[in-house]
Amino acid sequence: MHLVTLSDIEQARQRLQGLARRTPLLPFEVPELPGEQVFLKPENLQPIGSFKIRGAGNRIMALTAEERARGVLAYSSGNHAQGVAYAARQLGLPATIIMPTNAPQVKIAATRALGAEVLLYDPAHEKREAVAAWLLASAAHPPVLVPPFDDAYVIAGQGTVGLEILEDLPAVELVLAPVGGGGLLSGVAAALKLLKPSVKIIGVEPELAADAQASFRAGQVVEWAAADTNRTLADGVRTLALSELTLAHLRQYADDVVTVSEAELRAAARRLLLEARLVVEPTAALPLAALLRHRASLPPSQHTVLILSGGNVDPAVLAELLQD
Amino acid sequence: MHLVTLSDIEQARQRLQGLARRTPLLPFEVPELPGEQVFLKPENLQPIGSFKIRGAGNRIMALTAEERARGVLAYSSGNHAQGVAYAARQLGLPATIIMPTNAPQVKIAATRALGAEVLLYDPAHEKREAVAAWLLASAAHPPVLVPPFDDAYVIAGQGTVGLEILEDLPAVELVLAPVGGGGLLSGVAAALKLLKPSVKIIGVEPELAADAQASFRAGQVVEWAAADTNRTLADGVRTLALSELTLAHLRQYADDVVTVSEAELRAAARRLLLEARLVVEPTAALPLAALLRHRASLPPSQHTVLILSGGNVDPAVLAELLQD
Repeated sequence: MHLVTLSDIEQARQRLQGLARRTPLLPFEVPELPGEQVFLKPENLQPIGSFKIRGAGNRIMALTAEERARGVLAYSSGNHAQGVAYAARQLGLPATIIMPTNAPQVKIAATRALGAEVLLYDPAHEKREAVAAWLLASAAHPPVLVPPFDDAYVIAGQGTVGLEILEDLPAVELVLAPVGGGGLLSGVAAALKLLKPSVKIIGVEPELAADAQASFRAGQVVEWAAADTNRTLADGVRTLALSELTLAHLRQYADDVVTVSEAELRAAARRLLLEARLVVEPTAALPLAALLRHRASLPPSQHTVLILSGGNVDPAVLAELLQD
Repeated sequence: MHLVTLSDIEQARQRLQGLARRTPLLPFEVPELPGEQVFLKPENLQPIGSFKIRGAGNRIMALTAEERARGVLAYSSGNHAQGVAYAARQLGLPATIIMPTNAPQVKIAATRALGAEVLLYDPAHEKREAVAAWLLASAAHPPVLVPPFDDAYVIAGQGTVGLEILEDLPAVELVLAPVGGGGLLSGVAAALKLLKPSVKIIGVEPELAADAQASFRAGQVVEWAAADTNRTLADGVRTLALSELTLAHLRQYADDVVTVSEAELRAAARRLLLEARLVVEPTAALPLAALLRHRASLPPSQHTVLILSGGNVDPAVLAELLQD
């Protein structure tokens, strides 16, 4: 299996110039951890409010002229759809996004506002993969599918986060990142371990959607049921399973996957809102929650980075977190 | 009257190294204004969540050894108090903050957490200026008062925001900033006009607290009543009047002061929360509200910067804005 190389990730950075933003690294005071300098990597400040622009952007920028003419296709009701639509619009390519009929109207509207064509399916009767497969099979000039994580270009794009962290903080010792499908963690872990093998990389997921931890420890892909993973507030990591490709990256480059409770997640999200003054989606609070819960058992570090995956959160959820 | 010079502001920048953060300039999409590139200067990302660290920090860093030994004093229930307490702690100086007994408990606790001694007074019976004067007169080694805006060091400190804007965006044509006591607007306008006279600088305040506009247009300090200025949600600009010093800077370097309604302010704050994904206090939304309301009458610009003054907002107010 081909794991992404440093060259793949460096090429991704070149491709993403002018498309994804180079986010800053922000110091964040954690009084409970006096000997540890903690920094936030605020991917919520990306144009679409999430790191997903990097992976989707890299895949789309790498398309051949023939592929560009056919346009791109993605299925997602979340940040990946926005990333694909945004990158396609910047390049002037047609984008089609397959979304469930029960997706929030604001998300459907936002995707349309980015110029994408939205195709709806009824999740009670159809699976999005089947709809996509049908579309790809039936089109005379089928669009190119941009997968949310199971793709070397996507993983390399997310890996550019790792390059930026190391540039801004060469002393980095520990990095924590959310893990859903594993694209972000795969890319970041590869970038960092290939450049500085002593850095420890930990994935974080909710106890209620701990499929990645199960897969990481078993050494094979373990799938959870949607009824289970849907229980967490962290909607960015409700993915049912890693792919073989992301699991291979995690086994090679990541050090562990740890979990946090919903209460820990909510407290961390509230703290990022009020103390870092960043609007984050619940998923983005997983790393801070893990650092606070697991500090004693995590690798020691004086220079720690928490990757904030994104800031696309329903205003009602945000208001609820503030009132906790 | 001594207006701050470019040298004052450049010295402030030297003094603030390692104390205040160099904030980034973030592109912000405003679809209503297709020909105009809009950027945010997110001072909510400062350590204390506001630009006030710059002015307070510059004043405190410029103290003599003898003055440092005496410590510093400030009266404020808001961001300035945090700025003074934070800068004093970084230098290991004692700080005393005079706050009203009716200040929110969280603010009193936050000020104490920064290591400051908090003295309370009953605003129904005493004025904070009188309490401060009494303290200064009665102490054997009186602490040095750090005013919130009526001070050349404080103005020069806030002016460092202007230096950073011009460095990051040499093409800048228009800058909008909130105006309360006028320290931020004075410093930013001086820095920018002295370096690039063609830049237009506009102050923004709420219709319900439009004393700075009245003063700017009359050419003399006009004071509003607290009962009037307290009506606005923008608690950072409830100041009753400019000082002679800040008015002189505005008359020399600013181009106009415009106002916005509470509804416009709330809509702009909500948009910054959900579209820029930054937690801002209502005051920080004044510039965006003004750009949206007054675009036709503001100076034309293709490169516009909105200064976001801070992000210290009561969670209940934030939740309310989200539910608007």
